[in-house]
Amino acid sequence: MDSLLKKHSGVAGLPPGTVVYLGDQRVEQTQISVIDYSDGEIREQLLASAGECQAYVGKSTVTWINVVGLHDTDLLQEIGDMFDLHPLVLEDIANTGQRPKMEDHGDYIFMALKMLYRPENDDGVVAEQVSLVLGPNYVLTFQEVEDDVFDRVRERIRTSAGRIRNMGCDYLAYSLIDSVVDNYFTVLEALGDRIEALHDAVTAKAKPETLTEIHGLKREMVYLRKCLWPLRELVGNLESDESKLIDAKLAPYLRDVYGHTIQIIDNLESLRDMLSGTLDIYMTIVSNRMNEVMRVLTVIATIFMPLTFIAGIYGMNFEVMPELKWPLGYAMVWGIMLATATGMAIFFKRKKWL
Amino acid sequence: MDSLLKKHSGVAGLPPGTVVYLGDQRVEQTQISVIDYSDGEIREQLLASAGECQAYVGKSTVTWINVVGLHDTDLLQEIGDMFDLHPLVLEDIANTGQRPKMEDHGDYIFMALKMLYRPENDDGVVAEQVSLVLGPNYVLTFQEVEDDVFDRVRERIRTSAGRIRNMGCDYLAYSLIDSVVDNYFTVLEALGDRIEALHDAVTAKAKPETLTEIHGLKREMVYLRKCLWPLRELVGNLESDESKLIDAKLAPYLRDVYGHTIQIIDNLESLRDMLSGTLDIYMTIVSNRMNEVMRVLTVIATIFMPLTFIAGIYGMNFEVMPELKWPLGYAMVWGIMLATATGMAIFFKRKKWL
Amino acid sequence: MDSLLKKHSGVAGLPPGTVVYLGDQRVEQTQISVIDYSDGEIREQLLASAGECQAYVGKSTVTWINVVGLHDTDLLQEIGDMFDLHPLVLEDIANTGQRPKMEDHGDYIFMALKMLYRPENDDGVVAEQVSLVLGPNYVLTFQEVEDDVFDRVRERIRTSAGRIRNMGCDYLAYSLIDSVVDNYFTVLEALGDRIEALHDAVTAKAKPETLTEIHGLKREMVYLRKCLWPLRELVGNLESDESKLIDAKLAPYLRDVYGHTIQIIDNLESLRDMLSGTLDIYMTIVSNRMNEVMRVLTVIATIFMPLTFIAGIYGMNFEVMPELKWPLGYAMVWGIMLATATGMAIFFKRKKWL
Amino acid sequence: MDSLLKKHSGVAGLPPGTVVYLGDQRVEQTQISVIDYSDGEIREQLLASAGECQAYVGKSTVTWINVVGLHDTDLLQEIGDMFDLHPLVLEDIANTGQRPKMEDHGDYIFMALKMLYRPENDDGVVAEQVSLVLGPNYVLTFQEVEDDVFDRVRERIRTSAGRIRNMGCDYLAYSLIDSVVDNYFTVLEALGDRIEALHDAVTAKAKPETLTEIHGLKREMVYLRKCLWPLRELVGNLESDESKLIDAKLAPYLRDVYGHTIQIIDNLESLRDMLSGTLDIYMTIVSNRMNEVMRVLTVIATIFMPLTFIAGIYGMNFEVMPELKWPLGYAMVWGIMLATATGMAIFFKRKKWL
Amino acid sequence: MDSLLKKHSGVAGLPPGTVVYLGDQRVEQTQISVIDYSDGEIREQLLASAGECQAYVGKSTVTWINVVGLHDTDLLQEIGDMFDLHPLVLEDIANTGQRPKMEDHGDYIFMALKMLYRPENDDGVVAEQVSLVLGPNYVLTFQEVEDDVFDRVRERIRTSAGRIRNMGCDYLAYSLIDSVVDNYFTVLEALGDRIEALHDAVTAKAKPETLTEIHGLKREMVYLRKCLWPLRELVGNLESDESKLIDAKLAPYLRDVYGHTIQIIDNLESLRDMLSGTLDIYMTIVSNRMNEVMRVLTVIATIFMPLTFIAGIYGMNFEVMPELKWPLGYAMVWGIMLATATGMAIFFKRKKWL
Repeated sequence: MDSLLKKHSGVAGLPPGTVVYLGDQRVEQTQISVIDYSDGEIREQLLASAGECQAYVGKSTVTWINVVGLHDTDLLQEIGDMFDLHPLVLEDIANTGQRPKMEDHGDYIFMALKMLYRPENDDGVVAEQVSLVLGPNYVLTFQEVEDDVFDRVRERIRTSAGRIRNMGCDYLAYSLIDSVVDNYFTVLEALGDRIEALHDAVTAKAKPETLTEIHGLKREMVYLRKCLWPLRELVGNLESDESKLIDAKLAPYLRDVYGHTIQIIDNLESLRDMLSGTLDIYMTIVSNRMNEVMRVLTVIATIFMPLTFIAGIYGMNFEVMPELKWPLGYAMVWGIMLATATGMAIFFKRKKWL
Repeated sequence: MDSLLKKHSGVAGLPPGTVVYLGDQRVEQTQISVIDYSDGEIREQLLASAGECQAYVGKSTVTWINVVGLHDTDLLQEIGDMFDLHPLVLEDIANTGQRPKMEDHGDYIFMALKMLYRPENDDGVVAEQVSLVLGPNYVLTFQEVEDDVFDRVRERIRTSAGRIRNMGCDYLAYSLIDSVVDNYFTVLEALGDRIEALHDAVTAKAKPETLTEIHGLKREMVYLRKCLWPLRELVGNLESDESKLIDAKLAPYLRDVYGHTIQIIDNLESLRDMLSGTLDIYMTIVSNRMNEVMRVLTVIATIFMPLTFIAGIYGMNFEVMPELKWPLGYAMVWGIMLATATGMAIFFKRKKWL
Repeated sequence: MDSLLKKHSGVAGLPPGTVVYLGDQRVEQTQISVIDYSDGEIREQLLASAGECQAYVGKSTVTWINVVGLHDTDLLQEIGDMFDLHPLVLEDIANTGQRPKMEDHGDYIFMALKMLYRPENDDGVVAEQVSLVLGPNYVLTFQEVEDDVFDRVRERIRTSAGRIRNMGCDYLAYSLIDSVVDNYFTVLEALGDRIEALHDAVTAKAKPETLTEIHGLKREMVYLRKCLWPLRELVGNLESDESKLIDAKLAPYLRDVYGHTIQIIDNLESLRDMLSGTLDIYMTIVSNRMNEVMRVLTVIATIFMPLTFIAGIYGMNFEVMPELKWPLGYAMVWGIMLATATGMAIFFKRKKWL
Repeated sequence: MDSLLKKHSGVAGLPPGTVVYLGDQRVEQTQISVIDYSDGEIREQLLASAGECQAYVGKSTVTWINVVGLHDTDLLQEIGDMFDLHPLVLEDIANTGQRPKMEDHGDYIFMALKMLYRPENDDGVVAEQVSLVLGPNYVLTFQEVEDDVFDRVRERIRTSAGRIRNMGCDYLAYSLIDSVVDNYFTVLEALGDRIEALHDAVTAKAKPETLTEIHGLKREMVYLRKCLWPLRELVGNLESDESKLIDAKLAPYLRDVYGHTIQIIDNLESLRDMLSGTLDIYMTIVSNRMNEVMRVLTVIATIFMPLTFIAGIYGMNFEVMPELKWPLGYAMVWGIMLATATGMAIFFKRKKWL
Repeated sequence: MDSLLKKHSGVAGLPPGTVVYLGDQRVEQTQISVIDYSDGEIREQLLASAGECQAYVGKSTVTWINVVGLHDTDLLQEIGDMFDLHPLVLEDIANTGQRPKMEDHGDYIFMALKMLYRPENDDGVVAEQVSLVLGPNYVLTFQEVEDDVFDRVRERIRTSAGRIRNMGCDYLAYSLIDSVVDNYFTVLEALGDRIEALHDAVTAKAKPETLTEIHGLKREMVYLRKCLWPLRELVGNLESDESKLIDAKLAPYLRDVYGHTIQIIDNLESLRDMLSGTLDIYMTIVSNRMNEVMRVLTVIATIFMPLTFIAGIYGMNFEVMPELKWPLGYAMVWGIMLATATGMAIFFKRKKWL
């Protein structure tokens, strides 16, 4: 959540369109890789400088340029100039605190996505911004760090799996979005497993720490929700966009990925319900335990207070206390005490407190 | 709920349109049964292979092909090719974690439905996906397991009951959807009975286990809700769809089934209100019992503490304690004690704590 | 609420349009009464059989046929055929678990309404379904039991009160709907009185039974809400319907009755707020009482525990306990005890616990 | 709230358009006052009978007829006939339980408003219905009681302040609505002061009575809300109404008053938040106090119970109890007791209970 | 919040369009400063009187007139007349209790904004109204106090940074709005820091004062919300406005600032969630502590009550009490007591109360 919150103030007051990278520099060196393919041929290249992109401008084959690392703003500026991107688009690419959104600029469509992944040291979900520019014969993607989610698409291009090699840039962009969306399912499942485990743990034994964990998960889900709702909007807009960049044949695919975003949101809501159910159960267990504590106290107190009182009576030192001299007095007192205790026990039994 | 959640990740990363069955294989062997009828004649057949469907492609009579068992993806592919279904439709048929939805593909309409039923060993509701493809002169249905809900429609076709034999494919599709929707009423009634029983049980005696049951029912209803709202949308879209596949004469029937979905949702909301009312009553009973426990404790403690104190006074061993020597000292103390206890009792009576 | 819930399953699986009565047979014999009137003349008749209705089909005067008792489905079928009603309309008339709704069938408009009344033995509100068919020169109404709400309209027709005799069928239908809607005001007022009484009772003395009553009223209001929202929709649709059956002159009247439905819903929401306010007050009173109980317990315990301890000290049997031999020892102990008790009392006074 | 609730049932069953006054007769005698003005001249008159209004029908100057007192329904009928008002409009004028609304009847626009004021004996807010009819060259207003809110408008007409004398009937109607709306600000401010005072009172000392007051204010605000939302709708409709009765020049004024209604609703919502915040604080204070009570009890009990037990030990009468004979036995016991008490005190200190 | 609430009543009853300043006079003297620039030249001037503005009316360069201090209503009136502003616009400029809004008056667009800042003595956020009038070749801004937020824009004009000197009035207006919006990020961050600190403080130690602080922050956020939602609407309206005053080239910039408002609202909602999470944690900690208190009480009481009872038994003075004479009686009693205490401890251990 902090990332969403903290990012923007760094550029407050700067002229609009100023390209400033606000994240931590997460990769050593910006990497520019190109995959250029058509039905028949494919060519992969690792570019040494942004200038080499020029060769791909206006090429009729499908060109996918992937930029990893956003701290080198000059490089971004250079690429932006080459493909004639609006200054605000470049600003949005570098400013990684964007809300997922889609903008149709006529000659190209700009999309900002959040890719979720779990880092090695497994504490919570981390979001990385992926910017995607879909042009007439190119797709540009900008990532903060290298990610394996796009590898599956690369693999499909290389192996000519499915339809990807026979389709245009729009299908490539769709494939990339689809792989990002599919990744959400994986993230949600992991979250679901944690919630399920928590649920079981709570039912078994309610510890105060679980509360902290529940609240932590809640915050995480609020963050996910913030990513997912605009994502759904983004895909919905893409579906209804009448840009000439998107072929009519893509419609069922976009509808499909739109359906997935709805389903992901459904799942997230299910998880929220489950989590809040877990919280309710926790609360109930705590309250039940409290009740039990009180009941034990009451039972003990109500049994022993009268008994102690009776003992107190015959501990008095009056000179004239006839019972004290009765030979069976002591036994009689025990009798009274047992009767009292038994009466109380029966009373509690009836009240179902025991 | 898990089924909605777990299903999708199995296909994450695969090319779109890949047909993968994600459920457990629930039937031994895929069964393909055909009912082909017109006003005058009817023919039922059990097909040995998908290829035999070819005979029914383009036939002018109403053809209903029902496929039970979705694990044989080659077979699905074959049928899909025969009827020219979009790869994504086939993927959705096999991927049984779909949200209920309707897609008009021009030449045919695809619908994914959730059929609910209660298994023999009565623990909760189970949802099975039923996919339905309505074409110009055929209806394809795909089920995970054999189900008796469609039997009623089959019977009506065989016995020529109602209008079904005089109407087209659209009416058949409507009848199938209607039978699925009607089945929800039955499921909701069973749920209603369980909630009613729970309500009565809670009012009689609030046990901690009932809470777990309430939370279980809540989750079940959340799941039902997830099925019902998209179902309503589906039927609503069907009603407003202007496809040439759906005759104008069908309009009142679709409006009728749409009304039913609204009513089912109404009923579900009623059940939710009832369940949450039950939860409130449970909470109140628990809290009342706690109050009673505290009251008993307080009454006992406030009566016996002063008495024990008095007894303690005269248990002291001071040499000079004149009262101890009074002949009526002991009786006097008893008098004081009785007066104190009576006073307390009156006080509690006034406070309505007794 | 049960009625909404239980009704439908009886027809699950039957062909659509099957006329089945799902309620309990509440009248001995179906009654068919006719009022036929124009500006100048009026004629009332009690029909012996459905066939006699035929005389009124196509008559240019305003004909109101009222059918009481829905168990004789053959009779309904006969009337339906006579006036050319759609099978689904007949099904809806007989199936009394309908949600209020309006359907424009071109030649006639069908409406299902819920009429509320309180039975003699005053336990809660009972809903009866009233179906209304507005044709070009006839109005059909179908009721489960004879009801006095329509009597006011009958009286107006007989006495020519207001405009009713100069207007057409649409005005008659409007008058009937208006009388149903007006009846809701009466029902809500009775409900309001009960809630007001409950509110006063709670403020005076919170008893556990009132909770049950509050929850009962809540359920009743949920049920009312279920009736009222679709009713509002119904009247709204009627207002915006462009059917030739409804004259333009009726517009202000329909707008008026629409305003009434909004006001009824407003009133219901007010009652809900009031009821939930009552619940809050109940909860607060219970919690306050609990607090008071605890405070009494604490005050008593904290005063007497130290005192009893002091008494216990001097009840010890040590051989060397100088105080025991002091002539003023006993008095001194009393002094200490009084000082302690007074100190405690002052402490509690300051804390405002006393 | 009751007024909204109770009013309508008095007319249930009467023919629509029957003029029945449902309020209490609050003025002795109906007063009809007229202000007739144009840019150059102004004439004020107190009419003796409704018939005298006839002189103003069709007059080209701006005529404002104000009727105070609605119990004389014949008089209302007479005026209604004179200005050709629809029977339902007259019914709405007399039936003071109306929801604020606006109806464009073509030749005139009818509006029902709620004017709020606080009576002398300051208990809560009272609502009075003001009906307003805007015709081509007249404005009719109907009030239950004389009110000073309109006096400001009268004064402006008399002194020619602002633009009022140069504008038409629509501006007069706007000015009246504006003065009603402005009055809401005053009422809300008074309410805000009470809530602020309550808030301060609660923070200082939470008394059970404040709860009753909070609930009372809550009900008042629910009532205000019921008045304000339809008012906003009313003004919004007026703004978007394309009646020829409203000049284009009025648009910014209507937009302005619409902005005011939104702002009033905003303020009301702020007050609601503040009130519910006050309730939360009250609850917390009560709960904190309870906690403190329990803590005191626990501290006292856990300190004195062990001490009393120790004293009890040496109060036993065993013949063989060596400690009793030790010369320093008594001192030793005191030592143990002090140590125990000190230990407990340190324990509580660490737990931050003291 | 009070400012929103209190402001309006001062003008209630005055003719619409009366210019009345409702705030406290916060600056000594109204300051009028002008920046007039085109691509090539720039001229800054501090005007001595409103009359000097006349020189800039109709000038083809971009003229930005900034007025600080709103108490001199004659001056406002003079400027308003010069630029032909509607009286209601002038009223809104002076009446600083406006809700953020935008009005397109054809020849100019009027906007009321809330600029937030934190005063030196850091208690909460203060809102200042900034009114902005965008004309064909001028921008007027009206502020209550001098503010440094606009300085950044001034600096950019002076240094020709970014595009500002090459664009028209619309871009200047956009830049000013953008700087106001950017400022919200800063304010939200400061708020976020306070909430984060509070969150940490609560987790470490829940004190009653934190509750007051949480409620204070809640009120502040409600106030922010009141500012932000209309701001978003304002920017959205500006974006979709088809005024000729706004060039098509501005569209991406307006879309960008619209995106920022959405993001700010998102952040605010995140902070609300976080704050309410903090409240939940506080509540839980308090409740846990209460539970712990009760548990300690119960453990102590249930251990010592039976022991004290046993001691009480042998403190009785019966003549015949054989145990008292047993040589090992005393040791035996100690044994029983230790056994009882140990048993209790084991019981509590099992119950996990210790």
